[in-house]
Amino acid sequence: MRNPPTLLSLTIDSALINFSTISDLSFVPEHILLELFVRTLKAGKLNEKILKLFVATGKEEILSVIESLNIQHILVPVLPTRKLFHDEVDIVIGALQPDLTSFMEQWRPFFSRFHLIIVQDPDLKGELKIPEGFNLNLYTKSDIDKVVGSSSNAISFSGYSCRYFGYLMSRNKYIISIDDDCIPAKNSNGEPIDAISQHIINLTTPATPFFFNTLYDPFCEGADFVRGYPFSLRSGVECGLSCGLWLNLADYDAPTQSLKPDLKNSRYVDAVLTVPARTMLPVSGINISFNNELVGPALLPAFRLAKEGKVRWETVEDIWTGMCVKVVCDHLRLGVKSGLPYVWRQERGNAVESLKKEWEGVKLMEDVVPFFQSVRLSESAVTAEDCVVEIASSVKEHLGPLNPTFAHAAETMVEWIKLWKRLRAN
Amino acid sequence: MRNPPTLLSLTIDSALINFSTISDLSFVPEHILLELFVRTLKAGKLNEKILKLFVATGKEEILSVIESLNIQHILVPVLPTRKLFHDEVDIVIGALQPDLTSFMEQWRPFFSRFHLIIVQDPDLKGELKIPEGFNLNLYTKSDIDKVVGSSSNAISFSGYSCRYFGYLMSRNKYIISIDDDCIPAKNSNGEPIDAISQHIINLTTPATPFFFNTLYDPFCEGADFVRGYPFSLRSGVECGLSCGLWLNLADYDAPTQSLKPDLKNSRYVDAVLTVPARTMLPVSGINISFNNELVGPALLPAFRLAKEGKVRWETVEDIWTGMCVKVVCDHLRLGVKSGLPYVWRQERGNAVESLKKEWEGVKLMEDVVPFFQSVRLSESAVTAEDCVVEIASSVKEHLGPLNPTFAHAAETMVEWIKLWKRLRAN
Repeated sequence: MRNPPTLLSLTIDSALINFSTISDLSFVPEHILLELFVRTLKAGKLNEKILKLFVATGKEEILSVIESLNIQHILVPVLPTRKLFHDEVDIVIGALQPDLTSFMEQWRPFFSRFHLIIVQDPDLKGELKIPEGFNLNLYTKSDIDKVVGSSSNAISFSGYSCRYFGYLMSRNKYIISIDDDCIPAKNSNGEPIDAISQHIINLTTPATPFFFNTLYDPFCEGADFVRGYPFSLRSGVECGLSCGLWLNLADYDAPTQSLKPDLKNSRYVDAVLTVPARTMLPVSGINISFNNELVGPALLPAFRLAKEGKVRWETVEDIWTGMCVKVVCDHLRLGVKSGLPYVWRQERGNAVESLKKEWEGVKLMEDVVPFFQSVRLSESAVTAEDCVVEIASSVKEHLGPLNPTFAHAAETMVEWIKLWKRLRAN
Repeated sequence: MRNPPTLLSLTIDSALINFSTISDLSFVPEHILLELFVRTLKAGKLNEKILKLFVATGKEEILSVIESLNIQHILVPVLPTRKLFHDEVDIVIGALQPDLTSFMEQWRPFFSRFHLIIVQDPDLKGELKIPEGFNLNLYTKSDIDKVVGSSSNAISFSGYSCRYFGYLMSRNKYIISIDDDCIPAKNSNGEPIDAISQHIINLTTPATPFFFNTLYDPFCEGADFVRGYPFSLRSGVECGLSCGLWLNLADYDAPTQSLKPDLKNSRYVDAVLTVPARTMLPVSGINISFNNELVGPALLPAFRLAKEGKVRWETVEDIWTGMCVKVVCDHLRLGVKSGLPYVWRQERGNAVESLKKEWEGVKLMEDVVPFFQSVRLSESAVTAEDCVVEIASSVKEHLGPLNPTFAHAAETMVEWIKLWKRLRAN
């Protein structure tokens, strides 16, 4: 049982909700003011106006906290990710290439203040080259064998799936994951874009899956809910998954990439939106983040093509996992966002060569999508773990007879949840 | 019964589908080439590469057609709306102000090649001031009285609703409608944006309501379907409604506008997307277009607040009609798009003053939205007219008892369909 809230805590709750009506904080005792400030930060409610109110109190302790957090008057939402979230985030990188130097150096300005988990593709021999100066855990084949051991024959962490081992090992609230052939995209001034901060903003501001806002994310600076948007839906829900996008090489399948070898994505769409409830989307694992506490167990390496490869268009494991997460989010009333941030994808692989293998994935989608569009979970599924087990059982029943890949996926999903729970029970 | 297709027609169909494999057209006889060119245009398939193939034939007739249509090598999709669609479009303007000179002059470059229908708000006395040089029909109170006469007491065309009289009178396939307090937005080079052409592109390219494409409109130049998008859904469906957006003054409700008087929309989001099936959105009548043949009867002036006003935030008639259209599109498997084009909205009205009236609209949305989210139509509803009558009956049953505004809306919808049919039967 939780302790009942204190009067102070209730007062601060109420102040947080009614901040727009408060024009003076100078009468508030300093220790309460400090707590209010911390709670304001945590609630993501610190904006220019509220910051001014705190500064205007002139209270020394407040001013020194503001200074120590390096909070400054700027035009973008004042989310001091530098200090506030750094111990709640793991950046998970699956290493499919032996030398990560160039990749890591280009991301250094944005990665260096967070903890990294790097998982080496177990098929990749030799020692990874990783530059100095990062706070990281590296996992290799021997770590995977030690942890998973002989407990499962179904789960494979090879290729892009190695990242899922990182998800399994993380105990942080938020996970951000970017493919190792992506570097920061640049804004119109040629400055690299901080994809990490944008993912954190996406995950820590509400999502709005139950009604579409035509001006996109209403929680973005300078935006709001459009006329006609029901007030009862304006508080939104928690965000489970944030799907970023790609400039330069987009995430097309092998047939599209082969037919249009010159097709590059150069359109920068300055928006984040919540994908509506009950709408499926092709989640790409290239550039994503998620709330590990809410949906972590649903990001799993279950769907493996017979001829899965080491280039993106030879995999659909992330498409499958994305639909699992979407179904889980819809069921648990959480949101999935898509849009910003962009990363810059560099060329890897030969699409025409891949065509020989990748048609299988393309064909299977014709069964996968209708399945996930129609699957419904029971009321007794109240956690992501419950949901995954129910989805697995439905996969086995409805898709299993069509293709052994599906039957294998169902089995792996069940194994994954067992493994997930076992590691967290210790 | 339709005539069977000719061999020539079938050959051209096949060529259109397989254009990507054709590298030479010089062997094709000139009359066939000409037909192929026209069909390519109509199918919206003319692009840089295909244009080059036609030019490379050197055939005089082809070259002169290309010249006469003023088709040039450019980067945006080559849709010669100037010639091809001009007789299929009506631009409908509801005049709420007596002097349209400034409005019309700013739109002249884009309006002048189309037919206009201007409907004067029947509450607006005196003669409208409209500049010379436009091809237009003007309708005033006396026209409305003549057409509608005493056949309906329910339908009112006053205020913003006057535009619906224009919809009623139009016999063209596409209708585009823009509020008279909006002028062309400008691109980053300071050039006015052609909202008309963008609406035509939106209406004449397919929509994709059954699966979300993370790179937005896959039919836009430089885009395609993302990996994982089922091939069986890639042909899309016809677009029923295109909802454009607004820069400067956004379409907020009176409470939001009052609380944030300085909040202007300055974020230009370079995207069009299909709003997924079964997802409701707040359609704003400020800047829209629709396929009159497919969904025309569903755009109706049914929902009138007791204290409806002459500024946008004092109306919800368009929100209601938008949800009707969305339900009709979902039922008939048509698409609704949102995004580009933007228009520049100028200030009109005082939001704080409006608050006294507009809360009613805000409150009613709490019942309106759940209703439209859950209403389902029968299989026997196969036209927009059928759908509207079914929705009206459901409104009467489920919403009618809650508020007289709903009962009145249901009655008006039935009246509207009668009027619509009567005018088309003559």
